[in-house]
Amino acid sequence: MDKEKIRELVEEIVKNTLQKAKHVPIAASNRHIHLSPEHVERLFGKGYELNKLKDLSQPNQFAAKETVTLIGPKGKIQSVRVLGPARGSTQVEVSLYDGFTLGVKPPIRNSGDISGSESISIQGPRGQITINEGLICAARHIHMHTSDSEAFGVSDGDLVQVKVDGSRGVIFSNVLIRVSPKYKLEMHIDLDEANAASIKNGQQGEIVAIEAKGQVSGG
Amino acid sequence: MDKEKIRELVEEIVKNTLQKAKHVPIAASNRHIHLSPEHVERLFGKGYELNKLKDLSQPNQFAAKETVTLIGPKGKIQSVRVLGPARGSTQVEVSLYDGFTLGVKPPIRNSGDISGSESISIQGPRGQITINEGLICAARHIHMHTSDSEAFGVSDGDLVQVKVDGSRGVIFSNVLIRVSPKYKLEMHIDLDEANAASIKNGQQGEIVAIEAKGQVSGG
Repeated sequence: MDKEKIRELVEEIVKNTLQKAKHVPIAASNRHIHLSPEHVERLFGKGYELNKLKDLSQPNQFAAKETVTLIGPKGKIQSVRVLGPARGSTQVEVSLYDGFTLGVKPPIRNSGDISGSESISIQGPRGQITINEGLICAARHIHMHTSDSEAFGVSDGDLVQVKVDGSRGVIFSNVLIRVSPKYKLEMHIDLDEANAASIKNGQQGEIVAIEAKGQVSGG
Repeated sequence: MDKEKIRELVEEIVKNTLQKAKHVPIAASNRHIHLSPEHVERLFGKGYELNKLKDLSQPNQFAAKETVTLIGPKGKIQSVRVLGPARGSTQVEVSLYDGFTLGVKPPIRNSGDISGSESISIQGPRGQITINEGLICAARHIHMHTSDSEAFGVSDGDLVQVKVDGSRGVIFSNVLIRVSPKYKLEMHIDLDEANAASIKNGQQGEIVAIEAKGQVSGG
């Protein structure tokens, strides 16, 4: 066996091993809000800028020190964390359980896909606004770097199944793959989903199947 | 082909069809409490008996008009429904999300298996008690009649996988089968699980695999 053959064989084995172990760290997102620059000013005052509390796992994203109160027809939720930096459109991400508390029905949507989504009122220390759309329940998704996407054999927009082990084991369907050279490998689910699978901090899921190729991804 | 052969063939086809379509109606259980006769008296007064609000799907079980307040180290939950009739030991069933609200960690347990489970305080109109154990998060399970068990090819104590379709599709693992001639076919999950799969009223799940045979079932 010559060196070239051995190299090819080793590459093949490494590739297969990587493709077999498609493990993804899971992060549960609590309710939060992304604000447009205009809405930052209307809720916190003219010229106000968000203050960083801590960095999030995806580059340039941070949890701000600021919080707001959500006000729905049936109830309020206080201390809802603002994420920064400010961006194009205001988007509020809550769980379906939060929807019951507020008395609204957030649709399951990919981030950025807020057209025709739910209305909600938002109260800050210096003002209150009502958005006609922008309240959603975020669809489960996996952020991954381009190199992960190659190693896992999946592409941006694919829908995959992710298996989570444990006494409350679950296989999640319709998990959207989002690929970017800026992303760090992480699966995002909400608190309802994390509790349903009794997911502990630092737990991993495993991509066990590709359900659909190349769906259109939100923003 | 004689009549006997045709009969056998038809029976075989009917049996296979039934076994292929293992559909189960799903019911989401909100937090609730089962009280011992002694605790009914301590919370509601001497000689008190629970009043039926409405029948539940399982025979002789009912939602009572009475509610209690749960008090944990971090918070309270009001208007927790009492289920009747009163039974041996007091058992409180909450979601993991409720556990965060109360500041306790309910273990995932089958109904009746409360040994070493969480402590909680319970307030009624005439008194307050603290139970040392009895607070659990109910493990997902399927009640079924003996005839369902035969048609589905599963037995009491089996663990199965149940698939739920939809945009938030999920396959639930470790779903305990509980068989009795008194039971009506129904899968019970909690609100975290119902929201994680965005389950609508009247939606059905499908038993897609048997994971383990004959686990020991709780009471």
